[in-house]
Amino acid sequence: MRFGAIEAGGTKFVCSVGNSDGILEDRVQFPTERPEVTLAKVTEYFADKEIQAIGIGSFGPLELDASSPEYGHLTTTPKPGWSGYPLLPHLKRAFHVPFGLDTDVNAAAYGEAKWGAAQRLDSCIYITIGTGVGIGIYAEGRLVHGLVHPEGGHLFVRRHPEDGFPGTCPFHGDCLEGMASGPALEKRWGLPGGALPEDHPAWRMQAYYIGQAVADAILLLSPKKVILGGGVMKQAQLLPMVRQEVQRRLNGYVNAKAILEDIDEYVTAPGLGDDAGLLGALALGIDAWKDR
Amino acid sequence: MRFGAIEAGGTKFVCSVGNSDGILEDRVQFPTERPEVTLAKVTEYFADKEIQAIGIGSFGPLELDASSPEYGHLTTTPKPGWSGYPLLPHLKRAFHVPFGLDTDVNAAAYGEAKWGAAQRLDSCIYITIGTGVGIGIYAEGRLVHGLVHPEGGHLFVRRHPEDGFPGTCPFHGDCLEGMASGPALEKRWGLPGGALPEDHPAWRMQAYYIGQAVADAILLLSPKKVILGGGVMKQAQLLPMVRQEVQRRLNGYVNAKAILEDIDEYVTAPGLGDDAGLLGALALGIDAWKDR
Ligand SMILES: Nc1ncnc2c1ncn2[C@@H]1O[C@H](COP(=O)(O)OP(=O)(O)O)[C@@H](O)[C@H]1O
Ligand SMILES: Nc1ncnc2c1ncn2[C@@H]1O[C@H](COP(=O)(O)OP(=O)(O)O)[C@@H](O)[C@H]1O
Ligand SMILES: [Zn+2]
Ligand SMILES: [Zn+2]
Repeated sequence: MRFGAIEAGGTKFVCSVGNSDGILEDRVQFPTERPEVTLAKVTEYFADKEIQAIGIGSFGPLELDASSPEYGHLTTTPKPGWSGYPLLPHLKRAFHVPFGLDTDVNAAAYGEAKWGAAQRLDSCIYITIGTGVGIGIYAEGRLVHGLVHPEGGHLFVRRHPEDGFPGTCPFHGDCLEGMASGPALEKRWGLPGGALPEDHPAWRMQAYYIGQAVADAILLLSPKKVILGGGVMKQAQLLPMVRQEVQRRLNGYVNAKAILEDIDEYVTAPGLGDDAGLLGALALGIDAWKDR
Repeated sequence: MRFGAIEAGGTKFVCSVGNSDGILEDRVQFPTERPEVTLAKVTEYFADKEIQAIGIGSFGPLELDASSPEYGHLTTTPKPGWSGYPLLPHLKRAFHVPFGLDTDVNAAAYGEAKWGAAQRLDSCIYITIGTGVGIGIYAEGRLVHGLVHPEGGHLFVRRHPEDGFPGTCPFHGDCLEGMASGPALEKRWGLPGGALPEDHPAWRMQAYYIGQAVADAILLLSPKKVILGGGVMKQAQLLPMVRQEVQRRLNGYVNAKAILEDIDEYVTAPGLGDDAGLLGALALGIDAWKDR
């Protein structure tokens, strides 16, 4: 049996086909253009794939309330053409199979829980530090939606004492995303993250913000695993600094061996590398087929 | 059928008996002394009550992993005699009925979801601003535990620009609890909250911290209802100020009618008043009986 997986990002779309063991057989990738153009490519890709169901992990914000007439629509995104776009209804017209849908970061958290760093655990959070910052939440064996869906990328972090950067978030200025996303990093230091040397002070500052957000999320949610992905986390020196900052912030308050002693396994890179979101989408498709 | 409910607080214990509709028939209350003294009173109270199960909402930190040999023990509390105390095992020896156990704030969130302000919703958070600050989480129809249990009372809030108070938290200084608990309020202004006039600047500052924590929790978790209880929230002027602060912080980012228009119903006082925790404990007892 084969299932379709769509990672619908604001920058690029990835489509793939995989089986129920989480093995991806094939994939394509293309930049995100206007919805009609992009979805035509998605539809073309899956047309001859004989898939039983499709799972989608999408950029947002998204309407995820299954009882809403706008279920599966994008809501108010600045991405041209996508605001209010009926992503799921459009795909449902093209393919008469069960669909699973969640946010990109929830999908990534789910992928990690199924086949990655959080296997056999009933909770984890997945934080991406990329063009945007997002936090996916898997708690008590379920992906968290609630009123809309989690938007933890905008947590109100404390400013680093030596940081005069105003932040890039159009809503909050110096929220987590405003201070620690890839574009914020680039604007603050005048070079993209990938071009900064390993020992640049930028990384301490990144760790200050990311570690604070991780500590806040641990306090509020007590996840069994914290997974950090996204382009900015490609800097291998960053993860150990984040772990240090998490321990410094919590200061022994959360009395758990995972945090006090085993933080290298507790705050970790994705077990699935860059495929966490895509494999999570696959898992959502498999679930949709099981629940059909 | 009758069920026992225990609200085990660091200051006082409340024991009660109720039915499956959430009606409490009777109750007793006594100060929290050393465990042996306190639990002797609990045992005496329930001895002749013919209850089918007992639910407990307890102060913590608590071991809530049912597979741990320390399940139901207090862990590292500064409360004399209680550190490591086997609360649940002790009560299980006295009463051979099913037991339900959760944190005090999770119990309160559950009570509100069953019979209070979050009825018919599958998520809510309950924040108590009292001697301590705690955040209980009910998400996707389940109480959240995870690695230990949520400890959102210690979120790393931003300092108010006019606040020079160092904070009272022995671990973090100026975390949420360190800045906004009842004792922090009293230490900062030299008078307990109940003795400060309604128009005192203390309340704006309280709202600044509490509103920030609520905004962070909304971003991270997207609950369908936010319920604010505890002694400090007895100040009726505080809740509207908190709502204002939540909206100011989020600044329209979370595009949900509940937040943008209906915040008076969204961020609200407990529907069960001071009985949220006790009724939540009752609900945990009822669940334990159903799952027996
Ligand atoms: N090796 C790297 N080191 C630091 N930053 C990087 C690196 N690679 C990509 N980035 C930054 O990460 C961001 C892109 O994040 P990514 O997760 O790849 O994509 P997206 O968030 O758009 O899905 C960009 O701002 C880019 O500058
Ligand atoms: N009316 C009030 N106004 C402001 N603060 C109050 C009021 N009543 C109690 N408090 C404060 O609330 C705290 C006690 O909180 P409470 O929720 O009643 O108990 P606990 O947290 O110990 O269970 C104390 O610090 C007290 O000063
Ligand atoms: Zn923001
Ligand atoms: Zn603290």
